[in-house]
Amino acid sequence: MQHTLLFLPDNISVSIEPEESILAAAAAAGVYIPASCGGEAVCGKCRVQVEKGEVQTTITANISQEDWLKGIRLACTSKAVSDLVIRIPESVMADGRALKCRPKSTRPISAKSIATLVGTWETAPPVRKILLDLPPPDLNDNISDMQRLLRGIKRALPDRPEPQYDHPELLRDLPFLLREANWQVTVILLHGKRLGDPETIIAVEAGDTTDRLYGLACDIGTTTVCGALIDLNSGKILAEASAYNAQIEYGTDIISRIIYSLKEGGLKALQAKVVDTLNTVIQDLCRMVTISPSDISYIMTAGNTVMAHLLLGISPKFIRESPYVPGLSLFPLTKAAALGIMAHPSVRIYLYPCVSSYVGGDIIAGVHACQIHKSRDISLFIDIGTNGEIVVGNSEWLICAACSAGPAFEGGGIRFGMRASPGAIENCHIHPENLEPMIVTIGNTPPRGICGSGLIAAVSELLATGIIDQRGKFSRELAHPRIRRSGDGWEFVLVWSHDSLTGEDISLTEIDLDNLIRAKGALFAGYQTLLASVGLTFSDLDRVILAGNFGAHIDLERAISIGLLPDLDRDRFFYLGNASLLGCRISLTDQRRFSERTEVRELMTNMELSDNPDFMNYYIAALFLPHTDMALFPSAGKSKS
Amino acid sequence: MQHTLLFLPDNISVSIEPEESILAAAAAAGVYIPASCGGEAVCGKCRVQVEKGEVQTTITANISQEDWLKGIRLACTSKAVSDLVIRIPESVMADGRALKCRPKSTRPISAKSIATLVGTWETAPPVRKILLDLPPPDLNDNISDMQRLLRGIKRALPDRPEPQYDHPELLRDLPFLLREANWQVTVILLHGKRLGDPETIIAVEAGDTTDRLYGLACDIGTTTVCGALIDLNSGKILAEASAYNAQIEYGTDIISRIIYSLKEGGLKALQAKVVDTLNTVIQDLCRMVTISPSDISYIMTAGNTVMAHLLLGISPKFIRESPYVPGLSLFPLTKAAALGIMAHPSVRIYLYPCVSSYVGGDIIAGVHACQIHKSRDISLFIDIGTNGEIVVGNSEWLICAACSAGPAFEGGGIRFGMRASPGAIENCHIHPENLEPMIVTIGNTPPRGICGSGLIAAVSELLATGIIDQRGKFSRELAHPRIRRSGDGWEFVLVWSHDSLTGEDISLTEIDLDNLIRAKGALFAGYQTLLASVGLTFSDLDRVILAGNFGAHIDLERAISIGLLPDLDRDRFFYLGNASLLGCRISLTDQRRFSERTEVRELMTNMELSDNPDFMNYYIAALFLPHTDMALFPSAGKSKS
Repeated sequence: MQHTLLFLPDNISVSIEPEESILAAAAAAGVYIPASCGGEAVCGKCRVQVEKGEVQTTITANISQEDWLKGIRLACTSKAVSDLVIRIPESVMADGRALKCRPKSTRPISAKSIATLVGTWETAPPVRKILLDLPPPDLNDNISDMQRLLRGIKRALPDRPEPQYDHPELLRDLPFLLREANWQVTVILLHGKRLGDPETIIAVEAGDTTDRLYGLACDIGTTTVCGALIDLNSGKILAEASAYNAQIEYGTDIISRIIYSLKEGGLKALQAKVVDTLNTVIQDLCRMVTISPSDISYIMTAGNTVMAHLLLGISPKFIRESPYVPGLSLFPLTKAAALGIMAHPSVRIYLYPCVSSYVGGDIIAGVHACQIHKSRDISLFIDIGTNGEIVVGNSEWLICAACSAGPAFEGGGIRFGMRASPGAIENCHIHPENLEPMIVTIGNTPPRGICGSGLIAAVSELLATGIIDQRGKFSRELAHPRIRRSGDGWEFVLVWSHDSLTGEDISLTEIDLDNLIRAKGALFAGYQTLLASVGLTFSDLDRVILAGNFGAHIDLERAISIGLLPDLDRDRFFYLGNASLLGCRISLTDQRRFSERTEVRELMTNMELSDNPDFMNYYIAALFLPHTDMALFPSAGKSKS
Repeated sequence: MQHTLLFLPDNISVSIEPEESILAAAAAAGVYIPASCGGEAVCGKCRVQVEKGEVQTTITANISQEDWLKGIRLACTSKAVSDLVIRIPESVMADGRALKCRPKSTRPISAKSIATLVGTWETAPPVRKILLDLPPPDLNDNISDMQRLLRGIKRALPDRPEPQYDHPELLRDLPFLLREANWQVTVILLHGKRLGDPETIIAVEAGDTTDRLYGLACDIGTTTVCGALIDLNSGKILAEASAYNAQIEYGTDIISRIIYSLKEGGLKALQAKVVDTLNTVIQDLCRMVTISPSDISYIMTAGNTVMAHLLLGISPKFIRESPYVPGLSLFPLTKAAALGIMAHPSVRIYLYPCVSSYVGGDIIAGVHACQIHKSRDISLFIDIGTNGEIVVGNSEWLICAACSAGPAFEGGGIRFGMRASPGAIENCHIHPENLEPMIVTIGNTPPRGICGSGLIAAVSELLATGIIDQRGKFSRELAHPRIRRSGDGWEFVLVWSHDSLTGEDISLTEIDLDNLIRAKGALFAGYQTLLASVGLTFSDLDRVILAGNFGAHIDLERAISIGLLPDLDRDRFFYLGNASLLGCRISLTDQRRFSERTEVRELMTNMELSDNPDFMNYYIAALFLPHTDMALFPSAGKSKS
């Protein structure tokens, strides 16, 4: 249950999630609280006074009994049990001046209901079960067991063409199963490609099992494989689970995976790893709801082009070499068990088609989920991961591209960069006067490094406080112990060694800043190139849809402030979360929506940016915070003032 | 090259095949020559005088120089090099009386051209090759390799739907193959089930291989697997080969195979054996024409219901138990390699559908081959093997049944019975006066036993000479050393021990005769039951089609004389040989003819004879030579007079 939290003295009211710390809620609301250790009550700086309401907290030696009785608590280890009024004490500077906290950023615009984007869907999945009571054979009716089954299906579904069957185990087991089941069986049918196409018999089960029909939706990411187990009778999510893609052992990004795949046995090893990961997710999901993996009747997946190739055991070699040709872009419906996936031998795995070598099935699934192709409104769809994939268009046209943004937003190329996992700085504020940072980490643990959202926050704060200039260079004039020149050049120390988990200073360097600027510059140039190619500008965009885990955690104002996102009316922004998984889930549940996926792919035109001169020009112009063309960022001036 | 052979003194003219011995030609023409040893010049009895023309012969110590100069040769080791005039010397009986030879049977009616039955067929096979010259990819055209291939196919075949592909090896190899082939490839396409259905990509080969397209037609018999390698560009048979079904190790008939299949590991062992046999045939065929098994693009087979189940690894358990239900009757098009067959991984094996547990795909293929279903004429189709399968009908209806004839015609249940292999007595005459047999064996070797056609000949001769009566009992009045009573009851010695390969007397016993009478009685009762079920009699039959190896070697007059075949106008009889293999060959070559197979199966109604009271009555009445109702055999009196 959410509670309301009122921060005094600035009268800033926010809502707080049950598991959220007061520190994190304050950071999200832009309320500055001194905090260095990221949580766990180590530094003891984030003292707040509970004026009203009840908090759940950890008793700590950092607070005296006298202060405890006054309601002083550490924000990092306190959670709301009721609505709260919290006073942020004035802190005291080295020179004895009181330092008032003041809000700087608002909490990111709350995610609009995805329903407006995604629309509704029916529970009419691509697999169905029918119950048959077959008459036992006698000498006057001794057709084969399979003919008897097919005749039963025909009587149950008189208007449908005879289903297909090609599954050796089914054929082998059927005679025994029919007799053991005393001729009452449940048949699982898989829809054909098109509406009038015959269905396929997936399995036959003894007795009436019609109340149990399950499907797996799965986003196969380079980093993470996320699965959702769906009850296909109700359309409800029964369980969700995820696991790191075990291919990480052979490289963190798709390029290093491609390189590994070219080694002797590399392709096989990569395929085995992703299959292992899928099996881990399947086992976890099945354990949660006490079913067997063989109870899953359909697996609907999406992944980028390289992930799809590796899962199917197809070499991605030519994806990396100009002119960047994938082996396949439409993937055949495959028997999951044949790939080594824990599944009933006849159950099919579907992979969303890809557009090109670097715009994959995850993007098609995401666009498909949010129905850009069904609306006349012009949308910009952005999925930021190791690459940034972007799509612009509407129901009449779609144009897509991949920007080689580099892995900065996933922690790559950043000295203390890391993935969004416990210990990662995910949010920070820098006090405008004393330049002390307020550090919020994932899991409230002492900081180990900084993840993408933390990086955007930090850079935005560095820029706002004047610690860096628009080129991403440190101000040589500011004399502050955190701003220093090290072996790697200029840097800003976010966390001192005594507050960090690793025992070393955590800093941001000018090289880090340069990498981040290149990354956001590539994305921004991508938006501009796509829009310009169809004669449009940012103002023509009705919607900007942020997909991916990163998109869901981004601080919109700060992302705009550094020029990662266009400076548009905030109401036009939507956060979709894992759009690829959502697309899979919708397709798994609604056969009609599933059938519309082809429209997305057919509308979609791929644009190669790598040799595009416009892109290069836009890119050079975007290597500035937020941009060389400040007319594109009208609100930048405002936030600075 | 055939030659003409005139036998004196009876002025009987026959044609003789290059490899045929004069003895065999004489036996076929009904010209009696004393012969005991079956060939190889052992007994030295079969002396003939060459009056005109040239023979190729073996010099033998059995003929004196004087006789040699007179033109005396042994008929068993002499072949015709030119047209011949041959005089059969009078032989001398023990009492010194000259014994004149005289003809008794005419040569079996020569097989009518199968063309009249089988019709013509096109060379338009279910697989085809097309050559593609694909444009190499560049940055403006970097669709996936598979899309490029499909686009190339679409351009080559603009009116066809996009072909399917589901073959993992193809997908895996394609990127490399296209580049190695410098974008010129040959695609092998498999037709869909119906005309408008999309084709399936079987394989892609580098360069232009359109001149090489091969298919395998195969009859999978309980005893023998026969294969024919077909050039699908020309429709020509390139090679034929056969091998004993290695399942024989586990039982000679289908019932013993079913019993074995129920043992632990039995089904797997039986499947492995038939696959081994198929692989032997495939290797033999490929060696003959110097191609690789992976060059074969389609495998078209037919076998009885049990053979089909065992090949697919499906238990035939319930085939043996009333109400005799097969697991499957329509067999899915299967990837041959998945069964262990030496084949390209994507090549399909087709199995002709079966009608019932005991009327299998071999019968459908045979009926399909001779187009009974295309003619208004009423045909009786007979395939005699371990079981006898019979079909009656025309283009409007077809009715079929299996008669449990027992294996007498394949040597089963006959004391010296054996399969038609070297050393088997395949023909014999018994001299009407001295009752001495004239023995012709397969391979002209000393006799080891007697096969089906030899059995029919022997029984017919025993009946004609009065050695047995119409009940199959030996005449107790004839005093002849060959007619004797042994431990097994009465018997007739066909070959004395000194002339046999085994060194023991080869005889026919009353038990043997009883088994034969039951076998032919079951078949005849089968014909009658099917005809009566549709209100017809034998005189309504326009054609009697004899299928199977046995049918091709049968002596029509003798088969009628013992009541195995109905006594109809001899012009109505047709010999089709291996009709199942022929059906496979036609289907493999002509897609249109192939598509008509479903008509056969849909027209066909199965009749169970096992519990049919009419059948039992007909059967009892048929346990007589030729029959209790002599009105059914008008020519029986004639041949006796």
